[in-house]
Amino acid sequence: MKYFDHNATSPVPPAVLEAMAPYMASGNPSSRHNAGRIARRVIDEAREQVALSVGAHPSQVFFTSGGTESDNMAIQGLCAPQTPSQLVISAIEHPAVKKTALAMKRRGWQVTSVPVSASGVVLPAAVEEALQIPTGLVSVMLANNETGVIQDVLQMATMAERKGVLFHTDAVQALGKMPLDFAELNRHGVRAISLSGHKIGGPQGVGALVLDKRLDMVPLLHGGGQEKGLRAGTENVAAIVGFGAACELLPQRSRLALRQMRDTLETGIRQLGGVIFGAEAERLPNTSFFAFPGVDGETLVMALDKAGFAVASGSACSSDSTDPSPVLLAMGVPPELAQGAVRVSFGWSNTMAAVQEFIQALNVELQRLRQYAAVAA
Amino acid sequence: MKYFDHNATSPVPPAVLEAMAPYMASGNPSSRHNAGRIARRVIDEAREQVALSVGAHPSQVFFTSGGTESDNMAIQGLCAPQTPSQLVISAIEHPAVKKTALAMKRRGWQVTSVPVSASGVVLPAAVEEALQIPTGLVSVMLANNETGVIQDVLQMATMAERKGVLFHTDAVQALGKMPLDFAELNRHGVRAISLSGHKIGGPQGVGALVLDKRLDMVPLLHGGGQEKGLRAGTENVAAIVGFGAACELLPQRSRLALRQMRDTLETGIRQLGGVIFGAEAERLPNTSFFAFPGVDGETLVMALDKAGFAVASGSACSSDSTDPSPVLLAMGVPPELAQGAVRVSFGWSNTMAAVQEFIQALNVELQRLRQYAAVAA
Repeated sequence: MKYFDHNATSPVPPAVLEAMAPYMASGNPSSRHNAGRIARRVIDEAREQVALSVGAHPSQVFFTSGGTESDNMAIQGLCAPQTPSQLVISAIEHPAVKKTALAMKRRGWQVTSVPVSASGVVLPAAVEEALQIPTGLVSVMLANNETGVIQDVLQMATMAERKGVLFHTDAVQALGKMPLDFAELNRHGVRAISLSGHKIGGPQGVGALVLDKRLDMVPLLHGGGQEKGLRAGTENVAAIVGFGAACELLPQRSRLALRQMRDTLETGIRQLGGVIFGAEAERLPNTSFFAFPGVDGETLVMALDKAGFAVASGSACSSDSTDPSPVLLAMGVPPELAQGAVRVSFGWSNTMAAVQEFIQALNVELQRLRQYAAVAA
Repeated sequence: MKYFDHNATSPVPPAVLEAMAPYMASGNPSSRHNAGRIARRVIDEAREQVALSVGAHPSQVFFTSGGTESDNMAIQGLCAPQTPSQLVISAIEHPAVKKTALAMKRRGWQVTSVPVSASGVVLPAAVEEALQIPTGLVSVMLANNETGVIQDVLQMATMAERKGVLFHTDAVQALGKMPLDFAELNRHGVRAISLSGHKIGGPQGVGALVLDKRLDMVPLLHGGGQEKGLRAGTENVAAIVGFGAACELLPQRSRLALRQMRDTLETGIRQLGGVIFGAEAERLPNTSFFAFPGVDGETLVMALDKAGFAVASGSACSSDSTDPSPVLLAMGVPPELAQGAVRVSFGWSNTMAAVQEFIQALNVELQRLRQYAAVAA
């Protein structure tokens, strides 16, 4: 099986599994005995590894159960101490941000979703316009999970800071695929960034919120005082160690190799008559989101799966949904074309040879599906 | 190392690690391709294993990141749709319940903490009295993590049900150590129970909320619609599989063997002049919470650690706290005696021979510590 769905979950490399193995049956880090002290120490080491990979201080890293929890913790936690006002998000946020923002309506917040351009770029001018009314928080993602389009978070955060408004960014897809420097982001007004372990070859079930500690924040999970009182619950020691190990591997990975595979793929897609979404914008090097007019995305994904290639129809973020991608609709893509969307996302386990095989398989499957369509019509 | 701290975290047996191994690098269960479908299937199998172990229907099991999240999800989630009124807890709840309840004050809830008897039993009459005023939720644990004292949740839930009040119980320490039947609890008014994987030999980072689905509930984690929309976030596939496997092992474990080890230990403790907390009440078979007057608990734990025995001073739930146990203070134990508290909690990895060794080591360490104390005095 050729696995081209790294944005959904990236396979865990052997080195990470090896790092985790001794801690699969770890002590409770809050225990005073030796088993507990070892667990505490390895968590602190992982905290340093994660901090180093995003230009943060270890004391700014708070471990969570994953990207979704990090987003919920940031949005619910940063809104809670404030008098409800406006919460600004973009039209292409991951459901973990979008649905959390909508849930804040129940607590009196007014949610404004700013539009994107046809190429999937959040317009800073639209954020500036939204900021004309009193606002408590802006949350705009660093890179989109479906298109890979990179957003100008620095500019938007600067605007927010000028108005004294908090800024959070979901950096789950950015980590490891583009430069990420929390200290720099923070200097420009970004107060919190969400990370996930399993998108970079760490295990599922772990993530982090990297946080400017000067913020007033209400925890999402209350309890035993772990993570300096900001995230209660016995730490998932092995997963945290794995996340740290995966971060340590990031500098060894070649973003250029990802880009070359992606560019080769897209040359092939264009030759086969495909349309590439967001191609005009700055994008992550590993992500390609495309459609072939008249070919259903879901059907193509299943055909490719049978041919031995794992790719996605839209994101894997909304389980069981067959609606066209809200990201594409926000970009103004016609629903019929959006229904054809397929996402390929490369990662450490892929090779250029596999990409060549994939283009051939795509050619074969497209011919077959178009034949069926011709017969049916 | 003899590990006697199963209530903090229970070591993961080889069979569970073996069950998890194939899924350490699992697909995203929301993906449509084969890797995703396999992940979806094994999660559903684990859901059946967990459901079976607590007498629930699989559709009532919602996976979380652990016991703390389950408690937060239940309390925050069941309160959110209601007009704030009274929230009743007991004085000996785990911090995941107590601190969450206190956090609800910010949202307009009045929190009442009902007292316990000198033996650590929550008094049903006190709950009944609390229910005289309008109440939205009662949360009383099934078995205490420190003393092991079992609470009469059936009676308290029946009282709550008569008034139309929701009832949640933290069953984290009960699972595997006493009969647990959600269908029966639910018939008597218990609407939700919290479970944790790592307390029964499953991995850290996974738990469940078992829930009467007829309830109106607001999710704690919003996002991609996983767990039928009640708990968003990519599922921690390997951990969920491990939790299921650990549940499947439960019927093979002998509660009688645990009780025999505990009784042998307590005979030894009494002979050495120790006081056992909650001994008059019905308790979990594996837990013993005791103190030796004049001997500091923390010091004794560290001495036993050096001698090769991992035990706890109070619970491991509140990291870095050296205050005497709030559970013991609620039972009216004098602070000086509470400061001496040590908890031993047995589990699948322990043997009677190790218990005998422990009693001998306890004797040696106590003599040493009492000598120092005599010299110092």
